[in-house]
Amino acid sequence: MTEPYTWTIVEASTYLSQGKLSPIDLVKSLLERIDKVEPKVKAWTTLDREGALEAAARCKQELEQGKPRGPLHGIPVGVKDIFYTQGLRTTMGSRIFADFVPTYDATTVRRLKEAGAIILGKTASTEFAYFDPAPTRNPWNLEHTPGGSSSGSAAAVASEMCPAALGSQTAGSLLRPGAYCGVVSLKPTYGRISRHGIFPDAWCLDHPGFFVRSVEDAALLLKVLAGHDPQDAHSSKEPVPDYPQALQHFEGPPRIGLVREFFLDHAEEEVRKHFEGVIQHLAGAGATVQDVKMPQSFSAVQAAHRTIMRVEMAAVHEDLFHQHKEKYSAKLRELIETGMLVSGVQYLRAQRIRNQFIQDMIPLLNRWDVLLSPTTASPAPKGLQATGDPSFNIPWTFSGFPAITIPSGLSESGLPLGIQLAAAHFKEDRLLGVAHWCEKVLGFKEKPRL
Amino acid sequence: MTEPYTWTIVEASTYLSQGKLSPIDLVKSLLERIDKVEPKVKAWTTLDREGALEAAARCKQELEQGKPRGPLHGIPVGVKDIFYTQGLRTTMGSRIFADFVPTYDATTVRRLKEAGAIILGKTASTEFAYFDPAPTRNPWNLEHTPGGSSSGSAAAVASEMCPAALGSQTAGSLLRPGAYCGVVSLKPTYGRISRHGIFPDAWCLDHPGFFVRSVEDAALLLKVLAGHDPQDAHSSKEPVPDYPQALQHFEGPPRIGLVREFFLDHAEEEVRKHFEGVIQHLAGAGATVQDVKMPQSFSAVQAAHRTIMRVEMAAVHEDLFHQHKEKYSAKLRELIETGMLVSGVQYLRAQRIRNQFIQDMIPLLNRWDVLLSPTTASPAPKGLQATGDPSFNIPWTFSGFPAITIPSGLSESGLPLGIQLAAAHFKEDRLLGVAHWCEKVLGFKEKPRL
Repeated sequence: MTEPYTWTIVEASTYLSQGKLSPIDLVKSLLERIDKVEPKVKAWTTLDREGALEAAARCKQELEQGKPRGPLHGIPVGVKDIFYTQGLRTTMGSRIFADFVPTYDATTVRRLKEAGAIILGKTASTEFAYFDPAPTRNPWNLEHTPGGSSSGSAAAVASEMCPAALGSQTAGSLLRPGAYCGVVSLKPTYGRISRHGIFPDAWCLDHPGFFVRSVEDAALLLKVLAGHDPQDAHSSKEPVPDYPQALQHFEGPPRIGLVREFFLDHAEEEVRKHFEGVIQHLAGAGATVQDVKMPQSFSAVQAAHRTIMRVEMAAVHEDLFHQHKEKYSAKLRELIETGMLVSGVQYLRAQRIRNQFIQDMIPLLNRWDVLLSPTTASPAPKGLQATGDPSFNIPWTFSGFPAITIPSGLSESGLPLGIQLAAAHFKEDRLLGVAHWCEKVLGFKEKPRL
Repeated sequence: MTEPYTWTIVEASTYLSQGKLSPIDLVKSLLERIDKVEPKVKAWTTLDREGALEAAARCKQELEQGKPRGPLHGIPVGVKDIFYTQGLRTTMGSRIFADFVPTYDATTVRRLKEAGAIILGKTASTEFAYFDPAPTRNPWNLEHTPGGSSSGSAAAVASEMCPAALGSQTAGSLLRPGAYCGVVSLKPTYGRISRHGIFPDAWCLDHPGFFVRSVEDAALLLKVLAGHDPQDAHSSKEPVPDYPQALQHFEGPPRIGLVREFFLDHAEEEVRKHFEGVIQHLAGAGATVQDVKMPQSFSAVQAAHRTIMRVEMAAVHEDLFHQHKEKYSAKLRELIETGMLVSGVQYLRAQRIRNQFIQDMIPLLNRWDVLLSPTTASPAPKGLQATGDPSFNIPWTFSGFPAITIPSGLSESGLPLGIQLAAAHFKEDRLLGVAHWCEKVLGFKEKPRL
C-alpha cells in the first residue's frame, strides 16, 4: 500500500470502505504531509486540525456502524477561502475579513459534508479572488507562481496535502492554476454548482469548481456538488446525470474540434510544440481531430469579458471599497476605480457580445464532443508578484460552457503543461468522458519533488 | 345571432366550426365595423384588407375540406406595430421605420398564423412603445387617452374592430390600456412568450401579451402563443399547460392576497371606493381576501425599474439615435440621453433590487392564488398628449410575474375601471382560473357607445 496522502478520492474510498485504513489515519497522513511541505508551499490560510480529526472520528464510527454518509465518506478536502465555512475563519484573501467567521456553510460546503467529506481547512485565495497574489508557491518550482486566484487549492492538491479542493473561476482561476500545478481542474457550466455562500466576484461570470488528481475523481465530486439550489438565483434546474456512471459508459475515440485561432497565436513556442505533439498523440490513438473555425464574435470576447468583470466587481465592492479603500491592494483598487466609470450602455454592449458569442458557439459545440486548446499560453511564470495570464480560459468562463484541464506533460524546465477541453452547456458528462479518454492516452504520471 | 363583429374568439370559433358563418363573412363584418368606428378611434397603422380577405378565403376552403389549421382557425386579429409581419409594413410608431417592411414574421405572428388566425392589420403603438403618444383615442370617450404603448390594440379590441390583438409591456403597456379601455389583457411570465421579431424596448423587462374580451379567450390565445423558442435567448423551457382545460377545472372560490400598500395610497378616491366595493363583492361570493404585507424591497421597485428601463432603452437605441436624433420625439429623446449617463454600477444596483424583490415575493405568491390591486390609479385621463401612469403595473413587469387585468365597472364619468391580478412565475393557469371566477362574479357587460 502506498502512502495514504498520495491517494486519489477513488483510491482512498476503496481502502476506507474495505476497512484497510481508518478516516483518522488518512487525516493524520495528510497532516503529516502538510507539516512537511506546507512551510514551502504556503497553500493554507487556516488549517482545522482538531475539527478534521473530530470529523474523522465521527466518520470512523459511522463506517463501523455500516452507515457511511455518502460517496465522499471520510475524504478530507480543502476549501478556497472565499467559500463560507460555518465556525471556520473565511478571509476572502483580504485584510478586511482577516477575522471573519461565517455562521453558515456555503451550499457547496454543506453538500461536501452531507456526502461525508472532512473539511481539512481553508486554502489561500488571491485578494477577493482577483489578481493581487496570495503567498502560495508552485510545488513544482517554489520560485514560480501557482497561478490564481485559487492558488492554495491548486497547490495543495498538486503537493498531495489533500486529494481535492474547492475553487472558483471568474476569468481563469481554476483552469490556469490547475495547469500550472499539473492537476485536473473542472469549471462546470454556469449555474451547475450553487454559488450560495461564496463571496462574489462578478455575478455573470463566477463559477465554482474544484481541483483533483484524476478525471474519475472529478466525476465523483461533480455528482456531489451539482444540482439546483433555490438560494442561488442563477442556479440551474437542469437534471444532474450520474457522472461516474457516464464516465464508465463513454465510448471513445472522441470527435475533437481543434481551436488554433487566438490560442496558438498567443501560446509560447514551447507550448505550441508540446500541443502539436499532444494532437498527434490523441489522433494516433484514434481521436478525430479537426480544425474549427471560430465565429466573428470570438474576437470581441476578451474585451467584453474585461468590461463585464470590472463593472460587476465594482458593483460588488462599491460599499466595502468606500469604507476600506486603504485595505485594498493595487490591482483590485485599479479595477474597481475603472469599473465605476463604465456606463451602463457599455456594460450592456458587452453583455450583448456575450449573448452573441454563446449563440454562435452552440452549433459548433454540438458538432464536436469537445473543443481542444492549450490551457495556458506558457508554463507557470517565474516570480510571485503576478499570477499569470487567464486569457486562454476566458472564452469558456465568459460564455458559461463547461471546461476542464488535464495535465499533458512537462516543459523543458520541468513545469507542467495542460490541455483545455470545453463542451456544450450541461454536457459535463461528455466532457468528463473525453477527458478520461485523453488522460489514459496521455498517461501523465509525474509529481512535484518536495 | 348577434353581429359577428361583437363575437369573442370562443363564440366566433363555435359559429365558424358549425358552418353558421364563413371566415370571409366574419372578416367583412369586422371591416364594416372598422369603416364605421376607425375614423373616430384611429387604432390602426396599416389595415390589410386584401390580405385578410385572401387569408379568410383560404380558411373557408380549409374548413370546407374539414381541415381547420388550429384553435384560431378563421379568427381575425390585430398586431401591435412593433411585431414583425412578413410583407406587411411595421413602423414601430416611429418616422424612422415609416416604410419598413419585414421579411419575416415574429414568432408570435407565425404561431398565430399556424393556429389559423387571420392578420387583419397593424395597430398603433406609441413611438418605439415608449411614452410619446399614438393618434389613437379611447373608444369610451374620444377626448381621453386609450393608454399606451399598445394603444391601438387595446382600442381596437374595446371598440369591436377585432376580437383579439397582440401587444407588449415594458412598464404598463398592456394592463394600463387594457383597464382604460375596459378589456381583458394578459402579461404572462417573463420568457413565457417568444420575443423573437419584436422590436425591443428593454431586454430584461419586455413582455409580449395581448388584449381580448373574455378570460376564456385569453386562455385560448395563451395556449397558442406560449412555449420555448430557440430564437429568443430569454425564452423559457417550462412546459405549457392546456390553459383552456385548466380554466374549466379551476375550482373557486380563490384565496386572494390584497395589496393595499402603494396601490391604495396612490389611487384616486373614486378608484379606492370602487375597489373596496369589488373586494366586498368577491368576498361576498366566497373568496378568501386578506391583506398582504409587502417586503421592504417593494419600496425600491419603481426607481429600480426606471433605471433599468432607461439604460436598456439607451443601449437598444444607441446607434439608431446617433443616426436619426431629429426623428425622435421629446420623451424618448430625454430617456435615451438620461440613460446614456447612468453608470454600469448603478444599473447593476437596480438589477440587484430586482433579484431581491423576486426572491422576496416568491413565498408570498405561493401563499395565495393571486395578489389583487386596482390596475390603474385612475380611469383613462383626459387629453391625448400623455398615455397615463404605468406605476401600478410596474411591480409585475419588473419582476416578471404574470398579471392580468379584467374590467370591474365604470367610473362616475362612464369610463372603465379594472382590477389587476398577479401570480407566481409560470402560474398562468391559476391566474386565469381566478380571473375567470372574478369575471363571472363581477359580470361586467358594458360596451363603449360609438
